[in-house]
Amino acid sequence: MNLNKTFCFLFILNTARVLFAQDENPVEYVDPLIGTAKMGHLYPGATAPFGSVQLSPDTDTIPYAVNGRYNRDVYKYCAGYQYEDETITGFSHTHFSGTGHSDLGDFLVMPTIGELHLNPGTETNPDSGYRSRFSHDEEYAEAGYYKVKLKDYEIDAELTATTRVGMHRYTFNKGNEAHIILDLQAGIYNYEEKNVWTFVRVENDTLVTGYRQTNGWARTKKVYFAMSFSKPFKNFGQAKQKTGVYRGFWGRFDQTKNFPEMAGKNLKLYFDFDIQEQENIKIKLAVSPVSTEGALKNLQVEIPHWDFDKVKKQTQQAWNAELSKIEIETLKHSDKVNFYTAMYHAFLGPTVYMDVDGRYRGLDQNIHKAENFINYTSFSLWDTYRALHPLFNILQPDRNTDMISSMLEHQKQSVHGMLPIWSHYANENWCMIGYHSASVIADAIVKDNVNFDTDEALKAMVETAKVSYFDGLGEYMEKGYVPEDVSGASVSKTLEYAYDDWAIAQAAKKLGNNSVYKEFMERSGNYKNVFDKKTGFMRPKLKNGSFKKEFDELDTHGQGFIEGNSWNYSLYVPHAPEEMIKMMGGKKQFSTHLDSLFTMNLPDKYFENTEDISREGIIGNYVHGNEPSHHVPYLYNWTDDAYKAQDKIRNILKLKYQTGPEGLSGNDDFGQMSAWYIFSSLGFYPVAPGSENYALGSPAVKKATVKLKNGNVFTIETKNQSSTNVYVKKVELNGEPITQPFISHKSIINGGKLVFYMSGKPNKNLYN
Amino acid sequence: MNLNKTFCFLFILNTARVLFAQDENPVEYVDPLIGTAKMGHLYPGATAPFGSVQLSPDTDTIPYAVNGRYNRDVYKYCAGYQYEDETITGFSHTHFSGTGHSDLGDFLVMPTIGELHLNPGTETNPDSGYRSRFSHDEEYAEAGYYKVKLKDYEIDAELTATTRVGMHRYTFNKGNEAHIILDLQAGIYNYEEKNVWTFVRVENDTLVTGYRQTNGWARTKKVYFAMSFSKPFKNFGQAKQKTGVYRGFWGRFDQTKNFPEMAGKNLKLYFDFDIQEQENIKIKLAVSPVSTEGALKNLQVEIPHWDFDKVKKQTQQAWNAELSKIEIETLKHSDKVNFYTAMYHAFLGPTVYMDVDGRYRGLDQNIHKAENFINYTSFSLWDTYRALHPLFNILQPDRNTDMISSMLEHQKQSVHGMLPIWSHYANENWCMIGYHSASVIADAIVKDNVNFDTDEALKAMVETAKVSYFDGLGEYMEKGYVPEDVSGASVSKTLEYAYDDWAIAQAAKKLGNNSVYKEFMERSGNYKNVFDKKTGFMRPKLKNGSFKKEFDELDTHGQGFIEGNSWNYSLYVPHAPEEMIKMMGGKKQFSTHLDSLFTMNLPDKYFENTEDISREGIIGNYVHGNEPSHHVPYLYNWTDDAYKAQDKIRNILKLKYQTGPEGLSGNDDFGQMSAWYIFSSLGFYPVAPGSENYALGSPAVKKATVKLKNGNVFTIETKNQSSTNVYVKKVELNGEPITQPFISHKSIINGGKLVFYMSGKPNKNLYN
Repeated sequence: MNLNKTFCFLFILNTARVLFAQDENPVEYVDPLIGTAKMGHLYPGATAPFGSVQLSPDTDTIPYAVNGRYNRDVYKYCAGYQYEDETITGFSHTHFSGTGHSDLGDFLVMPTIGELHLNPGTETNPDSGYRSRFSHDEEYAEAGYYKVKLKDYEIDAELTATTRVGMHRYTFNKGNEAHIILDLQAGIYNYEEKNVWTFVRVENDTLVTGYRQTNGWARTKKVYFAMSFSKPFKNFGQAKQKTGVYRGFWGRFDQTKNFPEMAGKNLKLYFDFDIQEQENIKIKLAVSPVSTEGALKNLQVEIPHWDFDKVKKQTQQAWNAELSKIEIETLKHSDKVNFYTAMYHAFLGPTVYMDVDGRYRGLDQNIHKAENFINYTSFSLWDTYRALHPLFNILQPDRNTDMISSMLEHQKQSVHGMLPIWSHYANENWCMIGYHSASVIADAIVKDNVNFDTDEALKAMVETAKVSYFDGLGEYMEKGYVPEDVSGASVSKTLEYAYDDWAIAQAAKKLGNNSVYKEFMERSGNYKNVFDKKTGFMRPKLKNGSFKKEFDELDTHGQGFIEGNSWNYSLYVPHAPEEMIKMMGGKKQFSTHLDSLFTMNLPDKYFENTEDISREGIIGNYVHGNEPSHHVPYLYNWTDDAYKAQDKIRNILKLKYQTGPEGLSGNDDFGQMSAWYIFSSLGFYPVAPGSENYALGSPAVKKATVKLKNGNVFTIETKNQSSTNVYVKKVELNGEPITQPFISHKSIINGGKLVFYMSGKPNKNLYN
Repeated sequence: MNLNKTFCFLFILNTARVLFAQDENPVEYVDPLIGTAKMGHLYPGATAPFGSVQLSPDTDTIPYAVNGRYNRDVYKYCAGYQYEDETITGFSHTHFSGTGHSDLGDFLVMPTIGELHLNPGTETNPDSGYRSRFSHDEEYAEAGYYKVKLKDYEIDAELTATTRVGMHRYTFNKGNEAHIILDLQAGIYNYEEKNVWTFVRVENDTLVTGYRQTNGWARTKKVYFAMSFSKPFKNFGQAKQKTGVYRGFWGRFDQTKNFPEMAGKNLKLYFDFDIQEQENIKIKLAVSPVSTEGALKNLQVEIPHWDFDKVKKQTQQAWNAELSKIEIETLKHSDKVNFYTAMYHAFLGPTVYMDVDGRYRGLDQNIHKAENFINYTSFSLWDTYRALHPLFNILQPDRNTDMISSMLEHQKQSVHGMLPIWSHYANENWCMIGYHSASVIADAIVKDNVNFDTDEALKAMVETAKVSYFDGLGEYMEKGYVPEDVSGASVSKTLEYAYDDWAIAQAAKKLGNNSVYKEFMERSGNYKNVFDKKTGFMRPKLKNGSFKKEFDELDTHGQGFIEGNSWNYSLYVPHAPEEMIKMMGGKKQFSTHLDSLFTMNLPDKYFENTEDISREGIIGNYVHGNEPSHHVPYLYNWTDDAYKAQDKIRNILKLKYQTGPEGLSGNDDFGQMSAWYIFSSLGFYPVAPGSENYALGSPAVKKATVKLKNGNVFTIETKNQSSTNVYVKKVELNGEPITQPFISHKSIINGGKLVFYMSGKPNKNLYN
C-alpha cells in the first residue's frame, strides 16, 4: 500500500468527518463576532480554550485618560475591538473577554508594505500611520482562527493560537518592501504613563525576545515574550523615544537601527523584509509571566514547527473536545449558534497563567511553581461566581479545582492574607465588592468537587472574611452592616458579604466545622440590617444606626449600591429567599413586586451614567445586562408562582442573546452572561452557589446531552417544545415527577434524564 | 568553672589581642574617610570585603540632570558623600567605590524624631526635611563599621554589614515619637524619571520587602530588598505620589497609611515607633539581584540574630583576613595607614552579585545560577585591568578567576556576544573604551591562574574583538585604525584596541592557538598607524588616511583622545615599549621626552572641563589622577635611565597618596589608584598585563611579607631605606643580583625574597 495514498485517504476521511458530521464539530456553530459590537466587549480573535494568548485585532487605541481625566470612550474598547470601526491597528496577544474595565493588549503586531510608519495613525486618516482599512466582508472568525484582509496593504492576515503561543500568517498579495511592526507602547486602556518599561533583544535575524511592564488596572504587570519569524529580516530598528532611552556612553551607539539591545518606556520596533508577490511571513509569539527564557521554552514546546494549518486544526480539535461536552438539539439554528458561542465564551477564562514548566509570577512578584495544578489568572469573581464557576463544577471539574488551587496560592502570597477579589497577572485590582472567592470554593466543597486541601481552603475563606481594613468589613463585623458614611455602596457590600458568609458557613458545615458554621451563619443574616420596612427596600444605613435620609430606589448612583438600583439589589439575598420574601411581605406580595420589576418603566436618567447598564440589557426595571439580578427571575420559584419565572426566562433568552455582533445585551463579563444562557437554556440555574440545589426554569433546547467527566451522561429532554410553549407542564427526573422547582447537583452528576413537558399555558399548580 | 567568667576571660583576651597585637589587626590602619573629599569619590560607610552591600551615609542628593541638561555638580556625589558637607540625608545600601560616573544609592534609610518629613530638605535649610546636621568630630569610620551622631535628632547612628546585609543600630538619646524613613526615590545620579518603579510589601510589623527599578547608568536595573526591624512599628505609611499610584478601584483604599501593599514610581515610606530615652532600633536590610524571596533568604542566612557587635566583629575579622595577606613595615605610620587603606579600597570591588543560593540576574534579565563560582558585578574595566586585576592574580587568585567566570557568563548572555566593557547590575553601561576584559583574562591565563574553560575564554575574547558595530571597531579591523571622522576619541581607541589585541595574542600563544596568536599580534601593531612622525605624537587620522589638521597635543578635548591629552596618551603602547621608543626617536630622546612630561607646565585650560582630571592629580603634564598614564613612570625602565623612574615613583607615592579625606589625587576608580599604590610601594608594577613580567621601581615600604594562597611567602626587604634614599643601588632575588629592571610573576608566586639596596644617589648603571 502506498503511504502517500493512505495519508491522502485518511485526510479525506478526516475532512469529511469535519464537514458532514456536524454534531461532532460544534466549532462550526461558534461565532466569535457575536458580542463584538457595542457593549459585549468580546474579542473576535484566535485563542485556545482558557488560553494565555488571545491573539486578536485591535481597531483603535483610545487613551484611558487624557490629562489625568478619565476618557469615557475607552469603555467601548475593553476588548480592543469595536465592530463599527473601519480600521485595524494591529493584532495584539492578550485580551480580556467581555469585561467592563480593561488592561492588556500586549505586543501589537502589524504587517505593512511601502512607507514605514511607527505610529498607528488615526481612524479619520489611516494613511498617516501603520493601521489599515478593512471590511467585514473580508473578515472571518472561528474558534481558534481569525482572518482579515488588510486592504491598505493587500495583506491577508490569519491568526491562530495554542495555549501560550499566537501564530500569524501574513500573505502579501503585492511584492514590496514589507515591514512587521512590533508596538510595545500600544495597549488597551492605555494612558501616557501606563508603560513602565519595555525591553527587547534581537537574538538573531529571526528571533526577538523582551517584555512589557505596565502600571494599569494591574498595578505592577510584566509580560514577557519570544517572537520568531519564518523568514530572516534584513534590517530592524526602533522609533526615537522621548524619554527613558539609554543612548550609550558619549552617545556612541545609534540605537535606532540594527542595535540588538533596546529598552525604554515605549519601544516601537520594525523589521524589514523583501517580499515577493504571494509570499507569506509567519510569526510565532509566545508569552510568559516569568521570563524571556520561559517564553522561548513555551514557544519551542507548543509550536516546534511552521505549519500554521496544523496549529489551527489542533486548536479547533481542542475546542471541539470542550464544546462537545454538551450535545444539543434546538428549535432553531440560531439557538445552536448562540449556545455553542456561549459555551465558547464560557471557556475563555480564567486563563492559564504559567509556563510549560509550571512556573508563574505570584502576587508577591516572586516566581513560584505550580505543583500538581494548572495556575490560572484573570478572576472576574464578582461576575463569575454566580453561574460560571458552578457551570465549571459540572463541565470543567478539574479546571475548577485548579482555579481554586490558584486562588489558594494567591491567598498565601497575599500580604493581606486575602483570596482574590478581581485579580489578574499577579496583581489584585480590587475591582467590585464582596469576597466571592468564598462562594466559588464553598460551591466546589459542597458539590464534592475537591482536589485541594479543604481545611486550608476554609481557613483562607475565614481569614479573607476578617480583614478589617477591607472595604467596610471592619464595621460590618462590628455593626452587622457597612455604614454608608464609612464606605460607599454600603448596602451592596452588606448584602454580598452576607451571602459570602453563608457560603463559608455551608463549606464549614460540609467539613464538620461547627464553630465556623455557626459564626458565619450568624453573619449571613446581616442582610436584615439594611432592610427598611417603611419603604420595603434595602436602604443605606449610617454609622448612627439610622437610615440615610435621601433615598431613590430607582437610581443607581449615590444610593448605597453599585451597578444596580435598590429595586434590583434589594432582591439580593440568594441564600435565604424564603426569609427575604417573608421580610418583604410574603409570597403573594413578593410575586407582585417581581412582576412590577419586569414591567415598570425605568427612565434613562437612572442609569445613563452607569457604564455597565444600558437600555439593551433591560426589561422593565430588571437589568439583565449586568450581574446583580441574574438570579432574580428564578426567585418566583420561592413563591407560589413558579410559572412566572418560566416565561421571563424564555423571554430573556430570546431578547437578550441574539446572533450577530450586536447580539449581547451587556458585557459578557468573562463568561458569566454566557453561563447564565447555558444554564437557563438547559432549564435550571444555581441561584445560590454553595447550595446543592439548582432552581428549575424553562429549557430552551429541544434536547441536551451533558457528558460528564465521571463518564455519566445527564440528558435534558423536552416534550412539546416550541418557541411559544414556554411553560412547564410537568417535569420528570429519571421517570419520577419532580414536585419542587429544584434539582440537586447529585442528580445531575450521577447521570440520568430530566424531561420537561412543555405547554403554551402555565401550570400554576406544578410545584404547589 | 563559671561559664560567664570563661566568656568574660576569653573576651578580654580577644580584646587584648585586638588592642595590642597590632600587626595582626591591620583593620586599625584602615581609614575609610581617606578620599571622601573632593575627587576621591570614596564612601566612608560599612561594607564587607567585595560585599554586595555598601551601607554608607549620603550627604546630598544632587540631581544628575535638570530639565534634561547634565548638572555638573553631580560629579562630586559619585559616592553619595562629600566630606565638606554638613548634613547627612540618610544611609543608603549601595555605592560605587571611587568611580568617575555613578548610579546606585538604593534604599536610603534615615531615623528621625518629632515632626515627620518625607523629603530630605536642603543643605541650607536642613530643618525643612528629614536630613540632619552632623559633625566630623562625632563621626567614626572603620573597615566594616561607621558611626555618626545625627545632631538634629540626638541619634547615634551605627552601621555595619555582611556581604549581602546592611545592619543599622540607631540609639535615641531622647525619647519621643521616632520615625524610620525608607526613601526609594533617593539615589545617586538621580534625575526626575530615573525611578522606573518601586514596590513595597509590609509583610508584618517588623518585616518589609520590595524593590527599586531604575533607568540610570544601568539602563534596566532592579534591586530587591528585605528589611527587618528589631522592634515592631506601630504605624506606617507613604508620601502621596504624583503619578504611578494605583489608588484602588473607586478610590476605596487609603493607601497612604497602614495599607501594606504599595507601588509607584517613587515610594517614600515611614515607620513610626514610640521610643524611650537610650532605647535603640536595629535594622537589617538585605539586598538581592533576584527577588524579595532571595533577599529574605540572604537576610536569614547572613544575620540570623540581632547582635550588632557580633556582626561588626565578624566583618572586621573578615577584613583582617584579607588585609593581612601583606604584612608591612613602613618608614612612617601614615604610610601604613595609606597602604592598608589602599588594600581596603582594592578589595571593595568588583562586588558579589548573587544570592546565597547562587542565583543572580543575568545580562539578558533572566535569572541564572552561578555553578561553582561566585558571580561578581561592577566591572570598571578601563581602570581596573591595569593594576587591580593583576594584583588579584597575586592576592585574590580565586576571586579573580571567579570574576573571569562572571565575565564569561556575561559574554554568553550578551546579545552582542561581548565580554563586559563597564558592566554593573545585569547591565552593560558601555562606559569608556577598549575591550579590557581581554586583558584581565589574558593576564590570568599567562600567569596560570585559571579555573575556567580557557578555550571558551579565548573564543569569547576573539568574538568580542570582532563586533564590527562596536565603537569604530569595524573600521579599525578594516583600516588598522579608528578614523576620527567615524568615531571620536579615535586615537585612544586605536591604541587600546592594539594593546588588548596583544593581550589576546598572549593568551592564544599560551594556549597554543597559533592562528589567533598571529592574527592578533598583527592587529597589536596598529598603534603605529596613528603615530605622526612629524609631530612625534599619536594623532587622529581621518577615513581618507590623512591626519586631522588642527591638533593640540596638550588639549584633552576634541583631539582624538579621551580623558587624556596626546602627551600622555602617546605613551600608551604598554605591550611594545621598545618599538614605541624606537619610533619616538630612541632611548635617549625618549628619556628626555619623559623628563619633559614630568616637568613641563600644563595650563588649567587644557583640562578644566575634564571631570576626571584635576590639578591635584598632576605632576608637570603627567596625570596620575587618571588612568591612561599609570604605567608611564615605569617606561624609563626601557631606556638606559631606569633610575629616573625611581624618584618619580617615590614622588608620586608621597604627593598623590596622603592621609585624610583629601588624601587622594583623583577618583580611586574602584581600586585602580589604590592598586597602583600597593604595587609601587612594594617596588614593582604590571606595565602590560598579559605579560609575565613586572617592571621594577622603588619600594616605599621597609619590608613587606606577601602571604600567597599556595602557602608560599614572598618577602620584599629594603636596606638603607629612607624617605630620601629613593634610588635603588642594587636588587637581589633570593640572594642573586637582578640585572634587568624586571621581575617575573613566577618569581613572586614561587615565594622568595627580593631585597632592594637603597641609596640617596642614583645608580645609573644598575640595569645597564
